[in-house]
Amino acid sequence: MRLADLATPTLLLDRARLEANCIRMRDRCRALAVGLRPHMKTLKSIDAARIAIDPTHGGIAVSTLKEAEYFADHGIADIQLAVCITADKLPRAAALSRRIPCFSCFVGGADAANAVAAFAAAEGVPLRVWIEVDSGQHRTGTAPDGEELIAIARVLAGSPAQLAGVATHAGHSYDQRSCGAIAAIAEEERSAVTGAAQRLREAGFTIEGVSAGSTPTAVHTRSGAGLTELRPGVYMAGDLFQAAIGSHGADDIAVSVLSTVISHGRDPDRLILDAGALALSKDRSTAALEGGDLGYGLIADPAGQRVYGDLVVTGVNQEHGEVAIADRAVFARLPIGVRVAVFPNHACMTTAMHDRYIVMEDGRPVGIWAKTGGW
Amino acid sequence: MRLADLATPTLLLDRARLEANCIRMRDRCRALAVGLRPHMKTLKSIDAARIAIDPTHGGIAVSTLKEAEYFADHGIADIQLAVCITADKLPRAAALSRRIPCFSCFVGGADAANAVAAFAAAEGVPLRVWIEVDSGQHRTGTAPDGEELIAIARVLAGSPAQLAGVATHAGHSYDQRSCGAIAAIAEEERSAVTGAAQRLREAGFTIEGVSAGSTPTAVHTRSGAGLTELRPGVYMAGDLFQAAIGSHGADDIAVSVLSTVISHGRDPDRLILDAGALALSKDRSTAALEGGDLGYGLIADPAGQRVYGDLVVTGVNQEHGEVAIADRAVFARLPIGVRVAVFPNHACMTTAMHDRYIVMEDGRPVGIWAKTGGW
Repeated sequence: MRLADLATPTLLLDRARLEANCIRMRDRCRALAVGLRPHMKTLKSIDAARIAIDPTHGGIAVSTLKEAEYFADHGIADIQLAVCITADKLPRAAALSRRIPCFSCFVGGADAANAVAAFAAAEGVPLRVWIEVDSGQHRTGTAPDGEELIAIARVLAGSPAQLAGVATHAGHSYDQRSCGAIAAIAEEERSAVTGAAQRLREAGFTIEGVSAGSTPTAVHTRSGAGLTELRPGVYMAGDLFQAAIGSHGADDIAVSVLSTVISHGRDPDRLILDAGALALSKDRSTAALEGGDLGYGLIADPAGQRVYGDLVVTGVNQEHGEVAIADRAVFARLPIGVRVAVFPNHACMTTAMHDRYIVMEDGRPVGIWAKTGGW
Repeated sequence: MRLADLATPTLLLDRARLEANCIRMRDRCRALAVGLRPHMKTLKSIDAARIAIDPTHGGIAVSTLKEAEYFADHGIADIQLAVCITADKLPRAAALSRRIPCFSCFVGGADAANAVAAFAAAEGVPLRVWIEVDSGQHRTGTAPDGEELIAIARVLAGSPAQLAGVATHAGHSYDQRSCGAIAAIAEEERSAVTGAAQRLREAGFTIEGVSAGSTPTAVHTRSGAGLTELRPGVYMAGDLFQAAIGSHGADDIAVSVLSTVISHGRDPDRLILDAGALALSKDRSTAALEGGDLGYGLIADPAGQRVYGDLVVTGVNQEHGEVAIADRAVFARLPIGVRVAVFPNHACMTTAMHDRYIVMEDGRPVGIWAKTGGW
């Protein structure tokens, strides 16, 4: 396999960076004395999961039933669907419960708990569920200090469903712009979910699992006390946004989109790439960072080296990316036909646009990893 | 197949609306006395292509080699890859030229023309190419009044490559906000490409094909004089942005994302859907329309009726859509577990996130159409 033979646009994955990112997060969790449950919603690949899984924990998290089914097909025994379940999704969840030793999902309110309890009873399936609590993002989950929390546990206890534990996700950590502010969110996340666990225990329930985490809070939290696991995801890939908010270094980004320069234009001076809105996604996360707008992605060489300064994709159409240039000398450095890599704003959005990874080692393609996608 | 059994999120396609949209565009082109070459980059489905194809023309346009290969696999004889080709893509283009009667691609500059000519000579393949001219979008294509235009034709004439004609795409029509302004862009588009054809004819070249078009310019142009074909695409699906700029009516949108309400939240009051950034895309086209911001999509019922007023998806995470509500009465109308359809801002972005269509007739699912995607 040669770089020149790859059809573009295509998704690259730097194996050494992926491994380093995974080791760093495992070390981080070990230092916090919590298990690591890598969230595979970003990379959606069994090969990546095998590198990311914490051998002292063994499990993963996923964001869709299709991901869960894919990882079950590949032999993963402990899969947590970290999204609130609803009645329509229970048959597929039950099938997963029967197929693998430890499938679990989230329940975020009394309605869902009733649906799970009724289904578990009718089908005789001991569905494992985590009660999701809201630690401040105000997206899903019950209040950690509300009456509903205890009511959910009671409903589940009166059915064949099993209570796996309590879980939360402080997704609003992405909105913070300093390590200190993220650490404060991490503490809210930790105290919400450990407080909920404590209340449930005091009410007589056995709570084994206490699950929290996002990449920013996992990196910046000052304590893992009371938590049994963290479930960050995007850290494996890294991206421009996570680098900007301090989740990892600028040279830790393991995914990029290989693209070909297909045209030079003048008036205004610009390069046109064959990676547009579909190959890169329309995510503009870095636009929200003061002074840190990196357009639709930052241009590097195919080995992932930032040799083109601050050249970014300034505009996208469906299959075209436009790179505004200030100096025509760039035309000579990036002639028509040359390949570049584009680091994404948000890896989760960009990887979802592709159905495979070209695995890179030392700047050379060495293999292809399949991935899943969709629902 | 019952609506209640469909796994969400999933992509719906209203067959009657698709057919009406296709008939309207065929009638429009007939009135302009130009052929219609439907651009399949939006729907990427052979079933949709069979409805969209103009029987007096027979061809389609596509935006990637993978789309071209998919439609060739399904028997389409005339496929135009409406994107500038580069040297690395020529082997796949040549294979298509050998497989189907009429495959063609774009050449937008002298470099690409030289590559095509050299490849055609070396491989003995009569690759058909359209010279792309820039009609004002300043993305790709040579100037219609420049010397390069004639030079490209000379290079191609001296090789086994065949000159299919001249083509352009006034993508900047999307930036206009009135029918009159779009009509003016359409006239620039038409005059640029017909002017280029005239110059080439005066220089002694035979120019049969003169191809232009986008959905807005096809709808609003006042003349097809000198054009042989228009190649709009998004009109088949329609979307909130195209409705807002007058390409079609508010009730002509044929694609939507079926989603389930998975949670009710208070403080702030909100519904949470299982369609997030991956199911809807992060396209925010309507945010650019003064007073017309429809968030990440407008909520309808699964039959595509706008029964929920101006309820829109106000925020997205990867697998969650948030719908801010002003009145808690909405909770009773949209209980947890109910299905809604979300009309997209930009159909091309949203369809690309899915690998199939659930075909709807009279508000009921009646079949599944496969689609392609990727590169």
